Amino acid sequence: MGKGLLIVISGPSGAGKGTICKRLLETNPQIMASISATTRRPRQGEENGVNYFFIDHDRFENMITKGDLLEYAKVYGNYYGTPKDYVIENLEKGNDVLLEIDIEGALQIKEKYREGIFVFILPPSLEELKSRIINRGTETEEDIKKRYGSAMSEISQVIKYDYVVINDDIDRAKEDIEAIIRAENCKVLRVHEEIKLRF
Amino acid sequence: MGKGLLIVISGPSGAGKGTICKRLLETNPQIMASISATTRRPRQGEENGVNYFFIDHDRFENMITKGDLLEYAKVYGNYYGTPKDYVIENLEKGNDVLLEIDIEGALQIKEKYREGIFVFILPPSLEELKSRIINRGTETEEDIKKRYGSAMSEISQVIKYDYVVINDDIDRAKEDIEAIIRAENCKVLRVHEEIKLRF
Repeated sequence: MGKGLLIVISGPSGAGKGTICKRLLETNPQIMASISATTRRPRQGEENGVNYFFIDHDRFENMITKGDLLEYAKVYGNYYGTPKDYVIENLEKGNDVLLEIDIEGALQIKEKYREGIFVFILPPSLEELKSRIINRGTETEEDIKKRYGSAMSEISQVIKYDYVVINDDIDRAKEDIEAIIRAENCKVLRVHEEIKLRF
Repeated sequence: MGKGLLIVISGPSGAGKGTICKRLLETNPQIMASISATTRRPRQGEENGVNYFFIDHDRFENMITKGDLLEYAKVYGNYYGTPKDYVIENLEKGNDVLLEIDIEGALQIKEKYREGIFVFILPPSLEELKSRIINRGTETEEDIKKRYGSAMSEISQVIKYDYVVINDDIDRAKEDIEAIIRAENCKVLRVHEEIKLRF
């Protein structure tokens, strides 16, 4: 039994990565979701070690200093990051680990864990992207323009990824990612040691 | 619609590549089998342009000289080879092309068509390989030893391939290859031009 795969899913806002990840986790029990650490307060119903690892500011900065995070960012004064230990332990056990993350975070991870599989989720078209951003409903025209502009600049980062999945149908997108995982498990470079043992 | 994929399937004798390829072609109408050219005489029931392109010695050597073959070999005085035009035309049309070929041929193709997907089929174990070679039935002990030895040296070439599929179950092996094709169609490097057009 080899090591698990780290599957990093990202893409612009409005691409639908959250829904795809949820569907993937529901139907693939061998895939674990990575759990982020954060310094923000738990909201109603959120549990430590399930939704997030809730830790204090000092401990978070200590983790940064010690290199214990695969990536991190500060958003509105709160830290968010991916604890390395939780991911690595699961991979060593042979579990695949799924990480849904923004593009900046994904690129930080790529520097630290090159064996990861980096998947970029795209909306089916520009029009669809625009209408998904608008349909979130809560934003002003100004916000929509800003979000759209940043989505466009994010899409230009796709070239730094390994795979791109176009989310024109959730089930098809999910199956694309399942195929990617299955194919990656057939990569000679991943299984070469095992083959040497067998033959 | 992008270009099709060239899928090169090879592996040691007794790995079961023929059966897997047949099954793949039956259930994937978008995949075309490559047709080899040969200088040997057609056998009963063999059709030109279906089983092989039957051509004469001079024409074959002319194709070699002009670089019209992706690979070729001479076996017991007859030439066998893969005409480039047939493969390239199908790929340009968007068809995937499947090529079942020995390891030497596969490595020749890799030099000429790097974008190909090189899949190595392995038997589930050494014992199984031995018993499959023996069960072919027609060979002497000497032949069996020779075949086994050459299978072992062929297996050491696996590192030159992209993917390895272990044939412990024909349907699973077939599905592995289908997943590889699906994943390859999601590779950023293959679809980047198309994305630039869409966004």
